[in-house]
Order: sequence, then C-alpha cells, then structure tokens
Amino acid sequence: MPPELPPRPGSRLDPWIGSYADRAVGMKASEIRALFAVASRPEVVSLAGGMPYVDALPLDTLADTAARLIRDRGASALQYGSGQGDVILREQILDVMSDVGVIAHPDDVIVTTGSQMALDLVVRVFCNPGDVVLVESPSYVGALGIFQAYECDVVHVPMDEHGLVPEALSETIDRVRADGRTIKMIYTIPSFHNPAGISQPAERRKEILEVALREDLLVLEDDPYALLGFEGHIPRAIRAEDAEQVVYLGSFSKTLASGLRVGWAVAPHGVREKLVLAAEAAVLCPSNFTQGVVSEFLATQPWRDQVAVFRDLYRERRDALLDSLATHMPPGTHWTHPEGGFYSWLTLPEGLDATAMLPRAVNALVAYVPGTGFYVDGQGRRNLRLSYCYPEPERIREGVRRLAGVIDEELDISATFGTAATLHQPGGNTAPGPDLA
Amino acid sequence: MPPELPPRPGSRLDPWIGSYADRAVGMKASEIRALFAVASRPEVVSLAGGMPYVDALPLDTLADTAARLIRDRGASALQYGSGQGDVILREQILDVMSDVGVIAHPDDVIVTTGSQMALDLVVRVFCNPGDVVLVESPSYVGALGIFQAYECDVVHVPMDEHGLVPEALSETIDRVRADGRTIKMIYTIPSFHNPAGISQPAERRKEILEVALREDLLVLEDDPYALLGFEGHIPRAIRAEDAEQVVYLGSFSKTLASGLRVGWAVAPHGVREKLVLAAEAAVLCPSNFTQGVVSEFLATQPWRDQVAVFRDLYRERRDALLDSLATHMPPGTHWTHPEGGFYSWLTLPEGLDATAMLPRAVNALVAYVPGTGFYVDGQGRRNLRLSYCYPEPERIREGVRRLAGVIDEELDISATFGTAATLHQPGGNTAPGPDLA
Repeated sequence: MPPELPPRPGSRLDPWIGSYADRAVGMKASEIRALFAVASRPEVVSLAGGMPYVDALPLDTLADTAARLIRDRGASALQYGSGQGDVILREQILDVMSDVGVIAHPDDVIVTTGSQMALDLVVRVFCNPGDVVLVESPSYVGALGIFQAYECDVVHVPMDEHGLVPEALSETIDRVRADGRTIKMIYTIPSFHNPAGISQPAERRKEILEVALREDLLVLEDDPYALLGFEGHIPRAIRAEDAEQVVYLGSFSKTLASGLRVGWAVAPHGVREKLVLAAEAAVLCPSNFTQGVVSEFLATQPWRDQVAVFRDLYRERRDALLDSLATHMPPGTHWTHPEGGFYSWLTLPEGLDATAMLPRAVNALVAYVPGTGFYVDGQGRRNLRLSYCYPEPERIREGVRRLAGVIDEELDISATFGTAATLHQPGGNTAPGPDLA
Repeated sequence: MPPELPPRPGSRLDPWIGSYADRAVGMKASEIRALFAVASRPEVVSLAGGMPYVDALPLDTLADTAARLIRDRGASALQYGSGQGDVILREQILDVMSDVGVIAHPDDVIVTTGSQMALDLVVRVFCNPGDVVLVESPSYVGALGIFQAYECDVVHVPMDEHGLVPEALSETIDRVRADGRTIKMIYTIPSFHNPAGISQPAERRKEILEVALREDLLVLEDDPYALLGFEGHIPRAIRAEDAEQVVYLGSFSKTLASGLRVGWAVAPHGVREKLVLAAEAAVLCPSNFTQGVVSEFLATQPWRDQVAVFRDLYRERRDALLDSLATHMPPGTHWTHPEGGFYSWLTLPEGLDATAMLPRAVNALVAYVPGTGFYVDGQGRRNLRLSYCYPEPERIREGVRRLAGVIDEELDISATFGTAATLHQPGGNTAPGPDLA
C-alpha cells in the first residue's frame, strides 16, 4: 500500500488550480473582506468606503435625462458605439478638463468604463512582467491591484506634506536603474491624494515633471478629485504643462455618479491609439447609454453648480472629521488635513497596529481601511484611512468617538501586555474590491 | 558628414514607441478600418457590422424603466456596486439561462461590461504568453483579438457543416501536445456561429465535451445567439451537461440592447472567484445603472416576447439574404444556411480574393467583412461574412444584387488577367473594433 500523501493544496476545491496563468496564481480575496461585510451593517459607522454621496444628485432631473435620451435617441444610445467613446462626450470632457488647465483635442481622449479601466489599459499597453512602476507611499489600492495583476514590480517613493518628494524620486530612479531594472512610469495622484489626503502645490508638480522629463519617464496622473477642492482653488494638472510626457486620467465617478462607470484618459497620440485598440479588445466599446446620460447632463444642466453642491457637502464632512479627531484622539495620534477629496490618513501612536485593531473597531461599530492595503511592501501598520465622503457629519463625529475609544483601549492593552497581536498580513495579489475604492 | 539614415519606423510620430509592453508591440489598427469608415455612409448597404436591430425595442417602455429606476432607487443605481454584479440580476440571469438548460447558483455568475469583458477576464486568468488556445476555423474576430492581446498561440481546428469536428479536435490536441506546448482551453461558439452561421447538433456537442473531459481541457462556450434560433427550438448549451468543465458566456447585447454593455460568465467556483478578483482590478465593478435597467426590464416586461420579436425580424432578414443569394450569385459561390443568429459565411469562386475585392465592393456601395479577419493564419481569402441583422430586408436584397455584380466583374477580370491583386494582409495583433463585432 502506498503511503498516504497530503492532498495538493486547494485541489479538492478547485480542479483548475494547476491551470491558471502566472498572473492569477496570487490572486486572492483580501482577508479583511469578511470584516467589511460586517461593517456594511447600518449600525456600523463606516469610515472605510470611498463611495461618493450620490444621494445629493438631482434624481428627478437625471431620471428625465435618461428617459429623454432613450425616447429621442434610443436607437443609438442602446447600440454598440465607438471604441474610443462618443465624440460629443469627448468634446465635453475637454470643457471639464479646462478647469484643471488641460488643453487637448477630442482625438486625444478615450472614454472608458470608469477611470479604473483607463488605468488597466495604460498598464496593459506599457508593462511587461517585472517592469518597475514608481508609486507614492502610500498609493491607491486599486492601482496597486492593477500593477500586481500585470506582474509589475511596484516601488514606493516617499511623500512629505507636499506629496511625492522629487529628490527621493530621483534617488529611487537611480537605485532601480543601477539594479538593471526597467522603469515604465511614475504613477501619482497629485490632487487630494487617496489615501494620504494631501495635495501637491504647483511648485512640487513642476519639480516632479522635471524629473520625469530628465529621466524620460511617463507620468501617469490620476486625477478624480481635482474639482472637489475646499479652499477655493482647483489645482492645475501636471498634464497642463506637458502633453507628451503625461497620461491623464479623469472620472465622472466623484463629480457625477460612480454607478455610470464613465471615466477617461488623455494621452499622447501614439499611446492613445494603442489604448483604443486595447480597449476594443477588452470590452469592444464603453456603454453608449451611460455616456449619453453623462453627455445630456453636461449639455443641459449647470454641472459646475452640482460639483459645487458636492464640494460644500464634503467640506462640511471634512470639518466634522477634523474637529472630532482634534477633540477625541489621544496624544501620539496624527492625521492629515485634506483640502479636498474624500480622505484623511491617520497615524496611530507607536506600538499600535491598525490591521490588528480592525476587528475590535468593527466590534465597537466603526470601520476604516488599515494602512497596509496601500503598500505592497508591508508598510503602513500604524496607519489607517478615514473616509468622510459618505456618512452624515453627525455620524462621522460618532464614528470618531468610537474609534478614539478603541485606540484608548489598545493603548491600555499595549501598556499592560506589550504590542498587540496582529492578523496575518495579506500578501501578494489581493484585489481591492469596490468597497475599498 | 554621417550618411543619412532612414528614420526609425514610427519614432517621429510616437516618442513612446520603445516603451510599450511586448503584448502591445503588434497592436495596430486593421487596414480595412478606413474602408469601414466609408462603408458607414448611408448609401452603402452594410452587410459587415454585427449590430443588433435595437430599433425594434419598445423605447417608451425602456425610457420609463430607466426613469423609474433612478427615481425609486437612484442612490443605489448611481453608486458603485458589487464587483461580481447585482445579486438580483444574477438570479434573473439564471432564469434566462434555463432556456438553454443551464442550471447554476447565483454565486456562480459574474456580470461583466458585455460578454467581451468576460472573455477577456477568462483569458487573463488562464493564459500565459505562449499558451495554446484551440478555436474554430473560422472564429469570432473579437475573441482572436483577446487571445492575441494576451500573447496566446491560437490554433485553428476545422469545422464541418455541424461545427467543430471532434476527430480534428483530438488530433490537434495530440499534435500540439507532442510539440511540448500547453493547451489552456477550447473556445467554441456552438449556436449560430459567428462568423460561420452554423450550429452544433446535440450529438456533436456531446462529442466535443467528451474530448474535453478525456483531455482535461476547459471549454469556453460563447453563447450570445442561442435564443435567436429560427426553427422553433433553442439549442441546449454544452454547459447544461457539465458544470465543472465549462465556462459559459452569455450576453444581453443581442436579446436586449448592446449599448447597455451587460454580459456574464458562469464558471466553476474556483474559476469564478478568480474572475471576480480580476474584474475588480480591471473596472472595480460593472455599472449598477445599466444592470438596473436590464433587471427592471426582465422583472416588469414580457422579455421572452421581446426576444420573439427579434427572432421573427432576423428570420425574415435571413430569408431575404438566402433568397437573394440563390437568385443572384454566380456558380461556384457557396454559403451557409444559418438557422439562427446574425451571419452567413460565403465562399467565393476559386481564384477570387475577398480582401482584394472589398474596395471594389465598397465602391459598388455594398460592404462585408473579409474572411481573413476570422483566422490568425492567413486562411479565409476566399471567404467573407455577410450580416443580415441590421439592414431592412429590401436593403439586404439590394446589397446582395450589388455584391453579385462585383463578384461577376471579378470573375471577368480573373478570367482575363488571372488572379486579382491583393491588399497587404493585415497580420499580428489587430483589434476588431466594435463595428466588426
């Protein structure tokens, strides 16, 4: 009788386990997902999700817009469309981008199923497995998911209070190239950063672009929040200074409605051509219907007023967050002061671990995203992201009170028993999930 | 003075030419695209595009549906949603699939931005560069585009009048494996094949599944046309016989509206899990809004009656095509007799070349898709795809008359001067474009 062998891992559950592509081997659900399922219960104050407050939209107007679109132009709105996106919408996108100083031609724009897809296409077109992508430290979890899905080698570059540090960027480029590795792009979120909640001043943007030009590196500028600044000015995009060095990503998810999944990229001509071909292979074309709803809304409604409604609403929530953090957080806790966007980035007192603390926070009916999700290299254990975009101000205050209570308890435990136990670190190619967007 | 060097191809036009990923190097627009731009002029009868006749939809009803969705549930319909797709829609999809005999659990379904995206995700999850995918001969141009975008090695397997030939499939598997290459899947369109216009009988499906089971190969069953059969029965899916060996792809593009971009995959549990993670990385989530429109329509309207409207309409157009082909085509021309779907596959008399003939056809105000686009290996020069889905029956008859005239002329020229000159063969990774879907 042969000796009993241990079963091949996973083989009983998934007969295809041996057949997947290399890029899919590490794909696994984040271990914090189960917690987020719990966190979506109404009694939990979720400071975790990046969901825009679409409840503030004029629903009757949008209902009329969608109905009119189908009645008047249904035969084209319900049909396949251009792989590059509707040309009228592309012209309207130029108007939207004029607010961040971007001047382009409609031919330079490609409309995508949310700007997440634009990001996917750029990486698809540029990155071989093993190519290096430079990202901020921390960076957007959904971008990290894409880079990892294409087996890129993600290298973090430090930020300071003005964002990505140009000297550190230069040093990192030198170091990576000295190792013989190929860098394909610098990925940055210059305005109201997700998750860091900070914005690059104009001077900093100039310095970053200079590094990119000197080192001949593409800048991938991800800019979904630029119009949601609270201090009365809209930051000028890096792309506004250079049309050839930058691929710019924009989105209607935060200024209109995320459920429509309409985003875009603006790219240098040759790159844009590749992006369209890649998009056609991936989805044939974006939805003519959702593009039509956006286009009709932009054409017939005072859309800048609607953005102002969102801006005022998020400012009030930002204030509620910062006020209550200042009131309740124990010494040794730090956080960023966002001047726009959805997020503040909090650093716990020394010795605490945001991942380990999460189950206890959810138990105390408050949720956040632990910092390690925004790094590929295990950084961020003392950090967490707080979103103020979705809950009402009073709920935000209550959430912060609860969170402060949890941190106080952790500090007590830590003082008594030493550093708290940690959950196993989720590693490899974990997908973000829309709830973490 | 140094000798004058020829410019590097493309380098003046695209400064990023040296930076692209290997998978993108061969991406280029098909050379027949410019012709299709001409072919979209109203005076041209286009038998080229695979656009469903959405004009036959009840636009007022759909307008009301969309408006009600926003008014009653706008805050969720316009918000980010689940990466796997709306659970109510997934349950309704089970009802749709019951017509082709597929029994599944809502957890097995993932909703995607058209079934094209489902196809992209399956390949993303399974295929490394160089992996072999077995496809019919000819096969769907949009699938070939995806396989090539992931640098798969596509191998064609012959069809006969009942579709993919099981013996040829077995022989091809043996031959490819003898070469030491890894086969990842068998891609098939069993019902009302695009572009071949033929359908596998039940017995043939059984034989193909037996080969797949014996050789332990995944079957990727692409099934957008199954409900559009003209002869009174709906073909039973291969997936109906085996839930573990098959990934099934379905779509609302042909039974409701392509402009909504709502399709789906049904997959074995472990595969479905990977597909969701890959989908979340690619687009975060499909549009809650377009999913909601589909879901509301299915819930409140007699959707099977609407499919019957399409079925009757396409049957009438199929009849117009076949009648006029029989009347006008010169001897030596052959074509398939579709019992459903959108397409007939025509073989020109010996010596003629469908790619070379296309400019002359467009000049005579009729368009088609040349056969070579449906192969990766240069086959199909004597073939072309005729679509009868979009033009009215009278226009179809007129188009066929014009096409017959062009073929007659080609035969004259060929008899006088020998085989006609050919356009340069588009090779490599050419994207299909939605107009060729």
